[in-house]
Amino acid sequence: KGGWSLSTVTLIPGDGIGPEISTAVMKIFEAANAPIRWEERNVTAIRGPGGRWMIPPDAKESMDKSKIGLKGPLKTPIAAGHPSMNLLLRKTFDLYANVRPCISIEGYKTPYADVDLVTIRENTEGEYSGIEHVIVDGVVQSIKLITENASRRIAEYAFEYARNNQRSSVTAVHKANIMRMSDGLFLRKCREVAENYKDVKFTEMYLDTVCLNMVQDPTQFDVLVMPNLYGDILSDLCAGLIGGLGVTPSGNIGANGVAIFESVHGTAPDIAGMDLANPTALLLSAVMMLRHMGLHEHANRIQTACFDTIREKKVLTKDLGGNSKCSEFTSEICRRVQDLD
Amino acid sequence: KGGWSLSTVTLIPGDGIGPEISTAVMKIFEAANAPIRWEERNVTAIRGPGGRWMIPPDAKESMDKSKIGLKGPLKTPIAAGHPSMNLLLRKTFDLYANVRPCISIEGYKTPYADVDLVTIRENTEGEYSGIEHVIVDGVVQSIKLITENASRRIAEYAFEYARNNQRSSVTAVHKANIMRMSDGLFLRKCREVAENYKDVKFTEMYLDTVCLNMVQDPTQFDVLVMPNLYGDILSDLCAGLIGGLGVTPSGNIGANGVAIFESVHGTAPDIAGMDLANPTALLLSAVMMLRHMGLHEHANRIQTACFDTIREKKVLTKDLGGNSKCSEFTSEICRRVQDLD
Ligand SMILES: CC(C)[C@H](C(=O)O)[C@@H](O)C(=O)O
Ligand SMILES: CC(C)[C@H](C(=O)O)[C@@H](O)C(=O)O
Repeated sequence: KGGWSLSTVTLIPGDGIGPEISTAVMKIFEAANAPIRWEERNVTAIRGPGGRWMIPPDAKESMDKSKIGLKGPLKTPIAAGHPSMNLLLRKTFDLYANVRPCISIEGYKTPYADVDLVTIRENTEGEYSGIEHVIVDGVVQSIKLITENASRRIAEYAFEYARNNQRSSVTAVHKANIMRMSDGLFLRKCREVAENYKDVKFTEMYLDTVCLNMVQDPTQFDVLVMPNLYGDILSDLCAGLIGGLGVTPSGNIGANGVAIFESVHGTAPDIAGMDLANPTALLLSAVMMLRHMGLHEHANRIQTACFDTIREKKVLTKDLGGNSKCSEFTSEICRRVQDLD
Repeated sequence: KGGWSLSTVTLIPGDGIGPEISTAVMKIFEAANAPIRWEERNVTAIRGPGGRWMIPPDAKESMDKSKIGLKGPLKTPIAAGHPSMNLLLRKTFDLYANVRPCISIEGYKTPYADVDLVTIRENTEGEYSGIEHVIVDGVVQSIKLITENASRRIAEYAFEYARNNQRSSVTAVHKANIMRMSDGLFLRKCREVAENYKDVKFTEMYLDTVCLNMVQDPTQFDVLVMPNLYGDILSDLCAGLIGGLGVTPSGNIGANGVAIFESVHGTAPDIAGMDLANPTALLLSAVMMLRHMGLHEHANRIQTACFDTIREKKVLTKDLGGNSKCSEFTSEICRRVQDLD
């Protein structure tokens, strides 16, 4: 113990069950002696100069200093014209890569065993460019924007990820048979980057074929890289294979180490404040965060404690098939974290 | 038997295993005394006036007269600028609805039981508009085009389908949280049309949520309607749930009864001509065709014979887990069709 200097992490507890599961994560981090200092911030959007929506300055400043954020679920804005906070955060900090490891959890039964793949989604452009027009009455166009730079950047991220995480292949997912120019450009950049990573196998596949093969045998996939919308779809599909958004971690990665890790499930307002929520997705996102910060020993210990708790099936929240409260599940993980010490 | 006047159907055997599985279907139709006269046509694209790619005039004429086509797999064109024949056929005959029933096949085991849903895909516009530009070097845009007319038309088709096929709900699948104008227009038309079908339940869901829920519990879905690309993805995903493209039928429906039914698997050049292919997808597509033509009794008899053969597991092609040849599988279905007579 000791010897670690504390690193600051910006904590965005979020809405609904967000505060409860954030508290759970903080408790487990404390039990693990993780050298983290939390700086809590709220990110309700405000209107800046010129009426532009922006995240509050104190949240922005905290992230600018800490460079690392952990975020619970945020409720979908209802005001017309109000942007999705998730999208605004990705944009504000140029978090260009959304990374979602999908790994089967022993003891949590789904129709699939031995899933072990990672989806890497381009997070800044494509179908999410937000450019749309009415051409004439009753005719609307949305523009999908693909750039060479963003495509190269995400391809490089995917290959670096594969190399650094002992993964053997990268599959580019596309519809370049239909969108020959845009997906064609994305694919070309992937091919070019692949040339520099001869140690990693490169394949390319149509999105529809990936979906079909994924539900038939997900074990054939390793690292998948793709444009924004395809990643939105495929990352949720893959989460479904291992048990849903309640157990799937996610990280949004930018340049120079900036990153926000988040659970991607909803705010579950129906059970908010009732001590019934499952903190697993946020906890596993926090474990990804620790790895990103180089704190592998703490990451491994927390992950093991979490997976052991799930495998043992004695103390589980309702959605995981048990009867325990969020706080009981949390205490059980804390106990195991300390035992592993 | 007799009493039936023969109807002409344009048969496009296709490439690779196409001719074998077409022969299988014709044999089974003969055994069932289905009142169909086949008019065989080839659809290799030719260049028309002005260099435009078009389907050969004799195939076009046959379809214009018969209005109904049955089509095997077509090989992907390799010549640059050569269009996908599948897309050209949809376009030439304005086949605006792609319909794919996905129903679990008893005896053919997959991780899912009791799947019984239908995807209805808008087949003419959206991401498949084919409009793309280079804005500046390294920046490309693809245009997704959504129109009021095509959206209303496909929504009406979906609700009519639900009503006529004793289905209780229609779910519109969209990303109107991201593509507010284009998917927003699509969704608005679905809502409007839903008002005229109070006997059918209407719901709306995000595409990513549908994918996630689909792999967790597909039995919650009934009829799904969606724009072009989402349909491409979701129809393949759903096919995967029940055993893949080798057992999934498909129909492309236009106005005034015009329709082409097709197997959507590939040409399998590696086994072409070896009497090893599985004709099930084309046969079930032909069964959809019979229903479309009002020939329900023949449709039911052929379908029962096919499903009985699969359930009995005695005479199956290799991909279905057996050792039989295509011709043996076909004869077994013929025998059963006649027994059911
Ligand atoms: C909340 C929503 C805007 C978002 C998206 O569509 O990207 C979500 O589905 C996700 O995957 O993070
Ligand atoms: C062959 C290809 C152009 C086609 C598509 O993308 O629509 C196919 O995937 C389909 O689903 O019919």
